[in-house]
Amino acid sequence: MHTHDHAPDHPHDHDHDHDHIHEHRDPGGIYLISPSGAVADAAGLELARERLRALGFRTTVDRTALAVHERFAGTDRQRLASIQRACRQKHPIVMATRGGYGLSRLLHQIDWRAVADSGKMFIGHSDFTVFSLALLAQTGAVSYSGPAAIPDFGQKGMDDLTADLFAETMRNELEVLSFESPDSDAVDARGILWGGNLAMVASLAGTPFLPRIDGGVLFLEDVGEHPYKVERMLSQLLHAGVLASQRAIVLGRFTEYRLAAHDNGYDMNSVVAWLRGACRVPVVTGLPYGHVKVKATLPVGAQVGVATEDGMAYLLLREHH
Amino acid sequence: MHTHDHAPDHPHDHDHDHDHIHEHRDPGGIYLISPSGAVADAAGLELARERLRALGFRTTVDRTALAVHERFAGTDRQRLASIQRACRQKHPIVMATRGGYGLSRLLHQIDWRAVADSGKMFIGHSDFTVFSLALLAQTGAVSYSGPAAIPDFGQKGMDDLTADLFAETMRNELEVLSFESPDSDAVDARGILWGGNLAMVASLAGTPFLPRIDGGVLFLEDVGEHPYKVERMLSQLLHAGVLASQRAIVLGRFTEYRLAAHDNGYDMNSVVAWLRGACRVPVVTGLPYGHVKVKATLPVGAQVGVATEDGMAYLLLREHH
Repeated sequence: MHTHDHAPDHPHDHDHDHDHIHEHRDPGGIYLISPSGAVADAAGLELARERLRALGFRTTVDRTALAVHERFAGTDRQRLASIQRACRQKHPIVMATRGGYGLSRLLHQIDWRAVADSGKMFIGHSDFTVFSLALLAQTGAVSYSGPAAIPDFGQKGMDDLTADLFAETMRNELEVLSFESPDSDAVDARGILWGGNLAMVASLAGTPFLPRIDGGVLFLEDVGEHPYKVERMLSQLLHAGVLASQRAIVLGRFTEYRLAAHDNGYDMNSVVAWLRGACRVPVVTGLPYGHVKVKATLPVGAQVGVATEDGMAYLLLREHH
Repeated sequence: MHTHDHAPDHPHDHDHDHDHIHEHRDPGGIYLISPSGAVADAAGLELARERLRALGFRTTVDRTALAVHERFAGTDRQRLASIQRACRQKHPIVMATRGGYGLSRLLHQIDWRAVADSGKMFIGHSDFTVFSLALLAQTGAVSYSGPAAIPDFGQKGMDDLTADLFAETMRNELEVLSFESPDSDAVDARGILWGGNLAMVASLAGTPFLPRIDGGVLFLEDVGEHPYKVERMLSQLLHAGVLASQRAIVLGRFTEYRLAAHDNGYDMNSVVAWLRGACRVPVVTGLPYGHVKVKATLPVGAQVGVATEDGMAYLLLREHH
């Protein structure tokens, strides 16, 4: 890691190149599917397509992306078929229009080998965590956790950095993701990057869809979960033997929960303190990732490096060359 | 089962004896501990003790039952020590004052063999599910899921049937629990009764604290969980191979959730329909159990019979003699 141009030895060198020298390259197009919740915001989807076009990505919308069945984006059969079509169409990137709920009950019906063999770059967020992890568990293939069409690209105040990080990652140009991390443990390690939404990760414990990754870099976020529920989910991963075998646990944002008077001082800091006491794995905080506007695009299943120094953390996403 | 006095062949014979012929027997006392959330309602605890006294149970309150640390009833060390004291004291029954959150992170530190060897009848609810299941997984010992001191016996409008069912079960007098179950699948089977709060059951998946029970009778309830979260937790148990190996899935009450407009008809009935499609196990509905006033006291880890007939369901809790 210390041979890397963007190593922590040079913490002020880490800013990735934001000029547009690469944008003459055609990054290929994006195929949009809805594997989870129904799309209520068709206008948001159009705005997302415009924004992706401005970033240089043509888009094609799957023919059942706007289907509605109960709370889902179509019946199970329709959503499964959309994944099959996504594997066969021409665009190199497949993006979920949104999260919600819907993939968990499809996991045993998806042809993971076909998904892996398609070579497509699948990307989504939140509920999509179970897709990425099941794909990794079943085939070892890499997919991406990052922005989704409607909740990110479809919002008027979309964060520019989120869009840039997405585009650079899709083009395999992003080398180092650096972020402020004032209270992180010391770490300098390499391993498989994996994780996502904590509730989704925990929901796969005990199933064949949770990857068995020793020496990995586990990243986690959640939304609307009280710290005690976050701790309970971490306890599950602890008792399942998942946490202690990681090289680092990287925490994104835990947002939109409400503390109560009877919490009596117990909060997310208590959870992190408990986590540090419960396992010896270095904890890295501050990852720009979660149900927030500013989010990185992270390759789930890829070898990465992770290091901290002087209040900063560095995620090395690919080897420098 | 059909040799039983209270068999479904005689559905009007099932009412258990509510006269007081047994109350001259001393059922032994109850030791009260707080292994989870802090007790804010000391008056409720006193009311619970009065009510238990009226049922014939003397009570003793553990010395840290009213301790407070953050949101917990004392530090981890204090709560662990209270469980140890509960194993050593003289009363045959140990009851949790309340649920909340707190046992999950203690599971690997509890001496389960000592708990089993104590021969005590442990009873609690909600968070206590993980105690019962871990005890069963680690030792095979039976414990009880039913009313807890404060949320049940400590309430002014406590349900009389709940109190009677508790007392009869503690005295090993209850033979059959019968309940209306108009849309249950046909079933007539025996197996180990196990389960509890669904979120707690699911939170043990992948850990050594989830019992591996084939051919069991799995009972479940939950509170404040949207049907899609209930379904996701059931999906976890499905993918973990837990559901398909049961002889019956017995559903208690799922309460205090809010449907939204975008649920678009999706509700708990949708979840039950999905469950029936996802595995071939008979589903029995209507169990009086959950975060509700009327709740049975269920022996977790005991051999039981389960049967349905003519819109009624029967849980045979012990052999007739």
